Amino acid sequence: LQELSVLVSGDSSRWGRGAVSRVITLTTDFGYGDSYVAAMKGVILGINPQAAIVDISHSIEPQNIAQAAYVLSTAWSYFPQGTIHVVIVDPGVGSARRAVVLETPKALFVSPDNGLLTLVMKDLCPPGDRPDSSEDERPLPSGARAVAITNPRYWNHPVSPTFHGRDIFAPIAAHLSLNTPIDEFGEVVDTLRLLPIPQLALGSKGETIGHVLHIDHFGNVITDIRRENLRSLDVVIEIGGRQVRGLSSCYTDRDDLLALVGSSDHLEIAYRCGSAAATIGAKVGDEVIVRSCADG
Amino acid sequence: LQELSVLVSGDSSRWGRGAVSRVITLTTDFGYGDSYVAAMKGVILGINPQAAIVDISHSIEPQNIAQAAYVLSTAWSYFPQGTIHVVIVDPGVGSARRAVVLETPKALFVSPDNGLLTLVMKDLCPPGDRPDSSEDERPLPSGARAVAITNPRYWNHPVSPTFHGRDIFAPIAAHLSLNTPIDEFGEVVDTLRLLPIPQLALGSKGETIGHVLHIDHFGNVITDIRRENLRSLDVVIEIGGRQVRGLSSCYTDRDDLLALVGSSDHLEIAYRCGSAAATIGAKVGDEVIVRSCADG
Amino acid sequence: LQELSVLVSGDSSRWGRGAVSRVITLTTDFGYGDSYVAAMKGVILGINPQAAIVDISHSIEPQNIAQAAYVLSTAWSYFPQGTIHVVIVDPGVGSARRAVVLETPKALFVSPDNGLLTLVMKDLCPPGDRPDSSEDERPLPSGARAVAITNPRYWNHPVSPTFHGRDIFAPIAAHLSLNTPIDEFGEVVDTLRLLPIPQLALGSKGETIGHVLHIDHFGNVITDIRRENLRSLDVVIEIGGRQVRGLSSCYTDRDDLLALVGSSDHLEIAYRCGSAAATIGAKVGDEVIVRSCADG
Repeated sequence: LQELSVLVSGDSSRWGRGAVSRVITLTTDFGYGDSYVAAMKGVILGINPQAAIVDISHSIEPQNIAQAAYVLSTAWSYFPQGTIHVVIVDPGVGSARRAVVLETPKALFVSPDNGLLTLVMKDLCPPGDRPDSSEDERPLPSGARAVAITNPRYWNHPVSPTFHGRDIFAPIAAHLSLNTPIDEFGEVVDTLRLLPIPQLALGSKGETIGHVLHIDHFGNVITDIRRENLRSLDVVIEIGGRQVRGLSSCYTDRDDLLALVGSSDHLEIAYRCGSAAATIGAKVGDEVIVRSCADG
Repeated sequence: LQELSVLVSGDSSRWGRGAVSRVITLTTDFGYGDSYVAAMKGVILGINPQAAIVDISHSIEPQNIAQAAYVLSTAWSYFPQGTIHVVIVDPGVGSARRAVVLETPKALFVSPDNGLLTLVMKDLCPPGDRPDSSEDERPLPSGARAVAITNPRYWNHPVSPTFHGRDIFAPIAAHLSLNTPIDEFGEVVDTLRLLPIPQLALGSKGETIGHVLHIDHFGNVITDIRRENLRSLDVVIEIGGRQVRGLSSCYTDRDDLLALVGSSDHLEIAYRCGSAAATIGAKVGDEVIVRSCADG
Repeated sequence: LQELSVLVSGDSSRWGRGAVSRVITLTTDFGYGDSYVAAMKGVILGINPQAAIVDISHSIEPQNIAQAAYVLSTAWSYFPQGTIHVVIVDPGVGSARRAVVLETPKALFVSPDNGLLTLVMKDLCPPGDRPDSSEDERPLPSGARAVAITNPRYWNHPVSPTFHGRDIFAPIAAHLSLNTPIDEFGEVVDTLRLLPIPQLALGSKGETIGHVLHIDHFGNVITDIRRENLRSLDVVIEIGGRQVRGLSSCYTDRDDLLALVGSSDHLEIAYRCGSAAATIGAKVGDEVIVRSCADG
């Protein structure tokens, strides 16, 4: 009988029923002025009245998949084991674009397969085998499983062609939180789509060349250069014609522009007295150069 | 004894104690910068610690009753049976304006009686007997009951004349979620106030003339023309001097302005690459004309 | 054995285990566009899956400690007994600034010790012994206890020097909601830091001189003059070169600027047809003068 139960629940049984979280997070570009987010929450609570729904953000810039991928990447790992993350920036809703459920040892993800899970995939790959800017698709790393969402049994009918969040993603997330195995939602897929991830380059004088990844609410300029990419603390950072020398440990370290490794392990330019982004005139995609002083 | 209990709990007994939801939604024009919404949540949780409170929206334009009525109408039916919807846009707070609890077979509503429930009422009426623009009050449709909120027993005292959300509506919603029958809150009323609902007109050449009802976060232009008002898919839509030909099924259908029936069954003008409202210069109330190509 | 349990749980035992609320509120300047707030919620739910987390506001102006102190002061007392309020506006994060847990008979507070709890402290002091503008630190009033947050045992490691909200305040709030006594988090402290609180002045003709404390979402101008400071209802209020005569009881009382005692017992200038702040050109800190007509 025990064996049967293992067979019935499929690979998902490795969570154990108790290990699936009732926590469902939402990350969308739906904004706060309409009822789109609320309709999703209503659908979820109708299926699992015990679900604990947490907003990550709904002010992703409309259709900005890369921004959603970044914001998700800085939050998901802080949630309890088995949390279900619904991520929707979906310019292709209603078209033939694929939607997926991704199951990893730590969390579940429900989203269109349009690159939203790029940074989750990157984190799941071993350091020596991470996706680069030339890849737009990648096999699932070891330990992860995914299905395409094709089985209409769990959807909210009639399905609006313009609002899969309410009619497909929300009910699937709710059923996941009730421990429905992912195989119920569609057939297994082996790859997920990736956004091109700009790679760090090495300049002719040994400098590291990266980019602005995100500008946060405080105007902190967050780059794609990570702690592990910094060979020393004795660096000069160039961005937008400005130079910042050395790494600080906190925002009060000086009254001018300063650089530090922020709370998601990314090199970040900040300004104690205001917005570093406004001071520099920085925007997402701008080049950031880090020279080690040891390189002369 | 059983009969007695039915008598005591009145019509509310048809829910049965288990059928009342612990879900309470909030729709207000209170914004996100003050503590008004939080104070309401604190009061609710003090009365029912198990309440699950969901924000529909708090960025209704200050005192825009029609906008709140629309946003509510697109969300409430997606919530579980017995959900309690608190809706507050209340320019008359503290004056003699009436406040009500409305009980319907699917949901409960708590709000000032100033037209906020117009579209809920419209949905409750049979298609042949819906309110038109000349009505500013209407008898409750069959299956619905309402009371005026007059019994101070359940209020938070002292009641601030400027914040009934915290001192009257929040505690009543919390007590409703504990299954207190609506008769406890005041005397039965037979009518609710309505906002004028602009009616669709029929032009001299058979065209349908409607209006812009709402502009959403993406700039989608949502009209008061519904799926049932479209006699064919072969239509030309005129708005703000622009013409859109044919109905699309999703936002990616073309790279120009397009029209489709959106997720709330309303005809909607969208623009894949940006805001249709900005492209057209559309605003709420603007005229929208739909010509059937069959009409020549 | 019973005595032992009292000893173990320390003074916190006066709550009784059942009296600690599972409600945790968050007030920050983190905004809604990043994942900072969500990461805190993930950490809390990982420690106490039953926590009920309520946002007070996350749109406090970056680094505006006084604004956060005000917004908190208008909300916290409406939450259930034993609610845990996390308040973070923390320009000094990562520096030597102290962080504290404050325990009062009604609620618990977790925050940097930078003045955020000034108005909570003021409310705890007896009317005759309230802090004035010259105090920047004050002994804890009777019935309150506080500890400095120094014991790393309950923190989320590694602690980011720039995000104590996620790595220190969130886990401590979660453990408090599980009834961990505050003594666990660090050593007892006897004083908390205060912001200067502007005092009401008495003019040469008996008039009361106060200030604009806050401008709310509706443009209502909220002052630091409270109900108890008004000697009569027959007053003339001067602000920004405008005069308002008499006190109204609600916003519909007249179609011009009006004054009333608002929902937090503060004198407030409002404008039925729009924003009083915009009409007057008022901003936080502006002088407000109240003359009693009896003073001639």
